[in-house]
Amino acid sequence: MQTWRINVRTQTLTHEAVPDSWQKLGGRGLLARILLDEVDAACEPLGPHNKLIFAPGLLVGHMLSSCDRISVGGKSPLTGGIKESNAGGRTGLHMTHLGIKTLIIEDQPTDSNWWLLHLSQKGAEFMPADDLAGLGVYAAAPLLIERFGDKVAIALIGPGGEMQLAGAGIQNIDKDQVPSRINARGGLGAVMGSKKLKAIVFDKSGTNKPPIADNKAFRAAQKAYNKALMGHTQTQVYADYGTAAIAGMCNSFGAIPTRNFSSGQFEGVDKISGEQLRETLLLRGGASETTHACMAGCTIRCSNIFGGTDGEEIVSPIEYETIGLMGSNLGIDSLDTIARLNWQVNDLGLDSIEIGAALGVAADAGLMNFGDGERALALLNEIRVGSPLGRMLGNGAAVTGRVLGVERVAAVKGQAMSAYDPRAIKGTGVTYATSPQGADHTCGLTIRAQIDHLDPYIQADVSLNAQLAMAGYDTLGACVFAGFGFGASPESIRDLLNARYGWQVDTDILKSLGRETILLERAFNHAAGFTTADDRLPEWMTREALPPLDPVFDVPNKTLDTLFDNL
Amino acid sequence: MQTWRINVRTQTLTHEAVPDSWQKLGGRGLLARILLDEVDAACEPLGPHNKLIFAPGLLVGHMLSSCDRISVGGKSPLTGGIKESNAGGRTGLHMTHLGIKTLIIEDQPTDSNWWLLHLSQKGAEFMPADDLAGLGVYAAAPLLIERFGDKVAIALIGPGGEMQLAGAGIQNIDKDQVPSRINARGGLGAVMGSKKLKAIVFDKSGTNKPPIADNKAFRAAQKAYNKALMGHTQTQVYADYGTAAIAGMCNSFGAIPTRNFSSGQFEGVDKISGEQLRETLLLRGGASETTHACMAGCTIRCSNIFGGTDGEEIVSPIEYETIGLMGSNLGIDSLDTIARLNWQVNDLGLDSIEIGAALGVAADAGLMNFGDGERALALLNEIRVGSPLGRMLGNGAAVTGRVLGVERVAAVKGQAMSAYDPRAIKGTGVTYATSPQGADHTCGLTIRAQIDHLDPYIQADVSLNAQLAMAGYDTLGACVFAGFGFGASPESIRDLLNARYGWQVDTDILKSLGRETILLERAFNHAAGFTTADDRLPEWMTREALPPLDPVFDVPNKTLDTLFDNL
Repeated sequence: MQTWRINVRTQTLTHEAVPDSWQKLGGRGLLARILLDEVDAACEPLGPHNKLIFAPGLLVGHMLSSCDRISVGGKSPLTGGIKESNAGGRTGLHMTHLGIKTLIIEDQPTDSNWWLLHLSQKGAEFMPADDLAGLGVYAAAPLLIERFGDKVAIALIGPGGEMQLAGAGIQNIDKDQVPSRINARGGLGAVMGSKKLKAIVFDKSGTNKPPIADNKAFRAAQKAYNKALMGHTQTQVYADYGTAAIAGMCNSFGAIPTRNFSSGQFEGVDKISGEQLRETLLLRGGASETTHACMAGCTIRCSNIFGGTDGEEIVSPIEYETIGLMGSNLGIDSLDTIARLNWQVNDLGLDSIEIGAALGVAADAGLMNFGDGERALALLNEIRVGSPLGRMLGNGAAVTGRVLGVERVAAVKGQAMSAYDPRAIKGTGVTYATSPQGADHTCGLTIRAQIDHLDPYIQADVSLNAQLAMAGYDTLGACVFAGFGFGASPESIRDLLNARYGWQVDTDILKSLGRETILLERAFNHAAGFTTADDRLPEWMTREALPPLDPVFDVPNKTLDTLFDNL
Repeated sequence: MQTWRINVRTQTLTHEAVPDSWQKLGGRGLLARILLDEVDAACEPLGPHNKLIFAPGLLVGHMLSSCDRISVGGKSPLTGGIKESNAGGRTGLHMTHLGIKTLIIEDQPTDSNWWLLHLSQKGAEFMPADDLAGLGVYAAAPLLIERFGDKVAIALIGPGGEMQLAGAGIQNIDKDQVPSRINARGGLGAVMGSKKLKAIVFDKSGTNKPPIADNKAFRAAQKAYNKALMGHTQTQVYADYGTAAIAGMCNSFGAIPTRNFSSGQFEGVDKISGEQLRETLLLRGGASETTHACMAGCTIRCSNIFGGTDGEEIVSPIEYETIGLMGSNLGIDSLDTIARLNWQVNDLGLDSIEIGAALGVAADAGLMNFGDGERALALLNEIRVGSPLGRMLGNGAAVTGRVLGVERVAAVKGQAMSAYDPRAIKGTGVTYATSPQGADHTCGLTIRAQIDHLDPYIQADVSLNAQLAMAGYDTLGACVFAGFGFGASPESIRDLLNARYGWQVDTDILKSLGRETILLERAFNHAAGFTTADDRLPEWMTREALPPLDPVFDVPNKTLDTLFDNL
């Protein structure tokens, strides 16, 4: 495996040996190491000194179930701090086959032309891409597939990334060539836009899977992992209902974001729940599918395809986060409307969490009525045409709140909260506050812990353990749901890594990777100027009670400030 | 002298004795002390925990020339850090006659009604002010004067402050009852708006000047000061040309902001210079005046009244900062257009620096053509009507750049630079970078130092000395131009303070006040989460050369980070 380093100004590729200190890291942990080694933390995120870095996780390359995720990172234009965002799809797998441990994209072109970067065994080729500029990803991806064949992996940006909006992500095509597997959070699509890359095509033809040090041991470990995964009760739940399964649970905890985080229960939740979603898809048939894999080899298949009454696909997939932020958070109780909003943000290459949160803030300011899906679609069109109003929304909830004078913005470090109100799930509030990534449930969701989520004094360990585990999984390239298996069979992580790389790591490897990752990330953020003052939920959440259970966020600041003290 | 503490929620006033640690401070220094003592640095600037504090400087109350300024402070909604902004007009003088050492306005009403706060010897009275809401200050002030007489002092906000825009200031009426003496910078008008106060009326009837410990010594010191002031060569220059005198000098240094800080020389500078201004005003006659005092007793009279060809007043005054930011920075070479823009921002109660900078950024993004004054006026009207576009502009240059995707934003800590490009006047760049206030020439302008302004290695002491002196003057309530006198006669500061208060301070009192002030301010900012990463000019200024002299800002970071080490 090598480092592939691309300079977008000189349009050159260099192959480099991987330094020792990078060898035992992948994904999120490797990104943190590289950013700390190579990027001035004070740099302008959309300027020439930032880098856009792709890194598959350590377990990527062998179609282990739920373990082929691609991490992308850089300094975030949304938070001003470190950023890693991972996604499914093909990109990670194809990179490992090409022998790319990490792809580092640096510098900035001096002109305004758009480019396509083609990577293969032959190296790198820059091709003009002005013909793709302005196209949504659903229009651009098929053109690329037509040109390069349906076996390639593609990472691309939509108009949102081209406009360098801080809510823009990077879309990856999945096993069915649908470009909706998004490195969503923190504006990495804007960083890609600042490098003037519309798309990166990874052509792995002629390559093989990355080598395995001990094939037999690997297969044994894989079997143990798969058995544990398939034996977990939640695996079938997620296969049946997808992530939407959690809507009802979150609502019952009084934690589902509703009308810009002004309530924790939504009267229309039954119309947008996982159960309703499944029923709708089964009823509609046609293109609709209740279960679908975003990565080849996944046995959970939590994804879905949402089709219309005419049997045609509207969008794939609908996730709980989108249901929460673009449904209940906007007072919208129609899955069809949510699906249409979802398609639009996907096509624009935007993070549905950030944009849903921004629309909620806009609604609070009177720019739309809660529940008015047509107006929400019209506001998304403002983003598409690049109006100042649209650019405001596309830059996320915090900027939108700042411009419109709305205090009730649910964000930390400038990044919008996911669909769990932290006043009612306080452990997740600890994660939101302290994660180096900004508010992000994938950094340590605590909703499944068997504790009183309203007790402010018992959340520290729950959040810390979740954060360490998630940073570990993100370094492995494992989906959060891989945790159903790895949690039940932690030794399989050890065995997979040792078999794959010929290492001798111990069973504490997951936490050890998580610990290293978070320490590196905190070091970067420290250099970028972050302090404990940034490790806070917004003040209004400490005094505005969340109906109907009426909790405020009252975890003591000291808990937040000492969380990582003994790492 | 007492502390008057107003709670806007309970609508109560309490009179309190002034703590010992506040006694020897006034103005900016006192604000810093109070903010550090009473305000959680992490608080939401527009929430109930921030306070809006008025504090006249130590020398205020006796109509000493250029020494009756009023400092207003709070946590800034623009920078997130400490904020002091001072202004001329009547407010400071009247407060001292009422015996108010400082007025602390705290908490937040729970409803949305607007109020007028009337302060007099009888105490405080809250009066409904919904009838004034939405009025510009030029409409609101006469109504207040009609109601309360022309002897009162008034501090009020315009629609900008009501909308809680971060570019909003607080207007004070001057000796001619014109409401254009603005505590301009850092969004204190928004803080006043968040307290739901449209105006504060200070009625000093029945009061006397504050006591003087040694009247004879005071008069002698005043005489020495006046003599030094009148003997300074610049005093007459400023009387003749006002602050606009500096336009030509700044242009010759290649430092006048031109078309959003993309050039340091403006081809139309002769049309907007101090010389042209004077000539125009002399020619027009009528309401026009080339020299005018903003505070009673001022012997410099750097203010002016700009009248039209019809003899009617357009605006008073036109200052260099407005000429720089709303003239050359927008490519506008007409004093009449600048005067009309100036009237609009004044009436809206906005900072002409911040709004001029925001318009420059908007022009860079294509929202107006440079030089198009009518379009600039139309954009100001967007602020007046409160559209999202207008709110974006009214929230300042940094937010405007963030929304519109313009990297070339001249701001530090979120506050726009004044009309001196720091690449060509590098000492002022050091001030911009390191001042706890954010970019602000009044915190330590270095343009008059007899040094090479392009040499990056000799600016530290020049900036540091200027910053200490200015923090000292701001604590005294002295205008920057009082420095013409105090600089030549530093012992008169000592003598005035000792005579006024019966103290025994030494001749180093100016720097000593400055030092204490800056240390307090840095402590507040530290608690608010500021680090050395915030003490930087924007990255683009370190790599984008400024035509025609083509300097970049290359003062070493180490110089910035060690500037205050030996305070």
